[in-house]
Amino acid sequence: MIGITTAILASLVALVPVDSLLEAALDPDSVATAHALSEQALTSDLAYQLTESLTTEIGPRFAGTSQDERARKWAVEKLTSLGFENVRVEEFEMDFWTRGSTGMEFVEIVAPFPQPLVATSLGGSAAAPEEGLEAEIVFFDSFDELLSHDPSPDSLQGKIVYVNDRMVATRTAEGYGPANRKRTQAWIEAEDRGAVGVLIRSVGTSSNRFPHTGMMSRPEGRAATIPAMALAAPDADQLERIHSRGTAITVRMGTQAGWRGRATSGNVIAEVVGDEAPEEIVIIGAHLDSWDNSPGALDDASGVGIVTAAARIILDHGERPRRTIRIVLFGAEEVGLLGARAYAEARAGDGTLENHVIGSESDLGARPVWSLSSNVAERAWPFFDAMQVEMQHLGILRGPNSGSGGPDMIPLQRLGMPVARLNQNGEDMFDFHHTPNDTFDKIVPEEMAQNVAAWVMFTWLLADTDLDFRESGRTSPTE
Amino acid sequence: MIGITTAILASLVALVPVDSLLEAALDPDSVATAHALSEQALTSDLAYQLTESLTTEIGPRFAGTSQDERARKWAVEKLTSLGFENVRVEEFEMDFWTRGSTGMEFVEIVAPFPQPLVATSLGGSAAAPEEGLEAEIVFFDSFDELLSHDPSPDSLQGKIVYVNDRMVATRTAEGYGPANRKRTQAWIEAEDRGAVGVLIRSVGTSSNRFPHTGMMSRPEGRAATIPAMALAAPDADQLERIHSRGTAITVRMGTQAGWRGRATSGNVIAEVVGDEAPEEIVIIGAHLDSWDNSPGALDDASGVGIVTAAARIILDHGERPRRTIRIVLFGAEEVGLLGARAYAEARAGDGTLENHVIGSESDLGARPVWSLSSNVAERAWPFFDAMQVEMQHLGILRGPNSGSGGPDMIPLQRLGMPVARLNQNGEDMFDFHHTPNDTFDKIVPEEMAQNVAAWVMFTWLLADTDLDFRESGRTSPTE
Repeated sequence: MIGITTAILASLVALVPVDSLLEAALDPDSVATAHALSEQALTSDLAYQLTESLTTEIGPRFAGTSQDERARKWAVEKLTSLGFENVRVEEFEMDFWTRGSTGMEFVEIVAPFPQPLVATSLGGSAAAPEEGLEAEIVFFDSFDELLSHDPSPDSLQGKIVYVNDRMVATRTAEGYGPANRKRTQAWIEAEDRGAVGVLIRSVGTSSNRFPHTGMMSRPEGRAATIPAMALAAPDADQLERIHSRGTAITVRMGTQAGWRGRATSGNVIAEVVGDEAPEEIVIIGAHLDSWDNSPGALDDASGVGIVTAAARIILDHGERPRRTIRIVLFGAEEVGLLGARAYAEARAGDGTLENHVIGSESDLGARPVWSLSSNVAERAWPFFDAMQVEMQHLGILRGPNSGSGGPDMIPLQRLGMPVARLNQNGEDMFDFHHTPNDTFDKIVPEEMAQNVAAWVMFTWLLADTDLDFRESGRTSPTE
Repeated sequence: MIGITTAILASLVALVPVDSLLEAALDPDSVATAHALSEQALTSDLAYQLTESLTTEIGPRFAGTSQDERARKWAVEKLTSLGFENVRVEEFEMDFWTRGSTGMEFVEIVAPFPQPLVATSLGGSAAAPEEGLEAEIVFFDSFDELLSHDPSPDSLQGKIVYVNDRMVATRTAEGYGPANRKRTQAWIEAEDRGAVGVLIRSVGTSSNRFPHTGMMSRPEGRAATIPAMALAAPDADQLERIHSRGTAITVRMGTQAGWRGRATSGNVIAEVVGDEAPEEIVIIGAHLDSWDNSPGALDDASGVGIVTAAARIILDHGERPRRTIRIVLFGAEEVGLLGARAYAEARAGDGTLENHVIGSESDLGARPVWSLSSNVAERAWPFFDAMQVEMQHLGILRGPNSGSGGPDMIPLQRLGMPVARLNQNGEDMFDFHHTPNDTFDKIVPEEMAQNVAAWVMFTWLLADTDLDFRESGRTSPTE
């Protein structure tokens, strides 16, 4: 069977002149420019320097804080001094949550083996009583086990729910979604069953003793009334070892976390205006905000550096692309894609949504790009197939025609905007993501340069064509 | 020249029957037993289980605290249930320092780029004012640069001294001493020049965002009057990057640290009594206390597990060694070898010091043993050379006849006791040492078993001989 199938495939390949098709998909002059720009990118340290500047001069920049405001000011100054056009801030209002004093965050085992654990409040957690919340834990091996627990409203009355499942590390970061359910949803399942608190094993893949924070869900605006915190992996291991001894475990947890009214954040926008179809927009994004526990080097200062450097190399080139390249540095991504939602709503309202021909975001750290995926109309598949061929020397494979263009592209994608993505190797991203350990020293300059080389080629080719990517197909051309 | 030298060496080797000499140094029956015990050790998980028990059931056990007391109780129960003889605690009094609430420890940059840093108080630090201590830093690239700074008493008036030098990671941990000078001594140099606080780059070799604690010196009982804290490596990098911009840096630091009177700690002792010369003691040690910021898995619960398991395998064997094997689990090692000093002083006072024929401690983590060093009389060199030959299958080389038998052996060694050491690979020990990240998950069971296999052979051969190791030579037999 295998022999016959191979023979059929071979004859099909013989009938279709693939190389010629791919060549026809890209304009040779545009390809030549893309390669020249990409060569420049490989010797540029601009992305690395921008990331250094943002993480050093601003540090943590949690949405709605004065640090977030300083980050917008930093971005406006940088984008202006780099020579971009139409630099501006679009502010928006948002619900504001903070953890309160980090010094007041704690989890400790009271019995049977008294000792402190390392933990952090989850975004959206309520405060614990001032003296701390002390209760026995109910140990769930997985979120699914919690889901299948007796749903009656007192089945976990007075208990602290603990959910233990682990995240799997992969290049594509596909382990994040399943592991993240306990972070986003466990509080609802716990609260609905009468629990007084929630603890989870940190979402993340490192055995280092850093807890992983992140937002919990707020279905229909419902706010948690119980505290919810994540233990660092070694502390989750500790709890698991104690649990394996078969004894009841009492813990005490403290946090001042809570919602604190409204605050302001904003998106920062800059452009390289196109020369033939300036009204058509290729949007390249990253998010400017970070979690509060680190300078967010990988999440997402590196993305800010990468897309800004790619656009700047195009700007420096002199020759303008057909379309306008719009950098959007989104605000308040970490707390619910708030900047991306505000941006998309504004475009849906002002009639410029249909001008957004395609979009993409860099938001998975700073490891090398290893695949190019798209989510565009079938007619545009050869364009992306051909683009990947031009990127092979950078170690980039063709990915499927499915998926998102990055978190902040989701609201625009839902409104019909085609997307594509330069997928970074995410194997160790969740060793650092949302932990205090997401610091500048984790970035490898040569890997950032590879990202920029891919992004500059990608951005130039998308902006310099007149191809319409819309009416997107949803199945893969390469499967 | 090389050819001639080689020829001379070859003729010398021919004249000296090295193998026969080495064979004569060890008793064949004793060697056979050592190998049998060592084989057992390679399939035993006792050391790993003991380490799991101590780190899980006690957790952090800082000298002078109730956790420290619980650890002694744990040790007495374990050593008794394992069947050792003469299990007992020798308590001692000590000066007691604590950091106060960890929630009140902080360092933040006030200007030019406001942001929090990750830091920990150093042992012996004084408290900062309640509202925090705010001052400009004076940046020293190295401790040597601070030493050579103008010694006049107001040359650093009102400043916070920052010392930046880095530790070098090596298998032998020889980078620790030089890097540690800034931790132990910088406060004195700073205080004597009018500084109001001290910050240092953490002693340690990891780029993970953990600060490294540890005691400062107390020359002649002098206590620091200024706060002293260590920044995690990424935060030291951050300070360095800001400093490289040439601007003045103001920081604010907070800590409740201080000396709090007297407290009790203790050494826990157990024996395998020898059958021919029970009054002669081979001391094998580890320390029971840990720093307050971790369960001290590598420092030194693993040492407790290793030496206890080695002695237990000998105990189980039935045949007694000539001499008594004495396990000593020292208290208050981290805060100045206080247990070791108390032990040595007591033996100097009661006339049993000369019974201590040799001693050794396991206190550099849980990586494989890679060399056997000794510090014994010249007549005993062939004994150790021969012992190393028997350990070659475990990957163990012969080290020099110099150095210590481990930190807690130093007071006894100073009083004339010979020492030897099974040197562990310390290349990554200072990634974890004295940080919150020194947790049980960092231990590899197979590597612990190799340690026990070496220790059981070492302990048996030392205890089953009548060789006198005293009047130690100080030069290497292998150089």
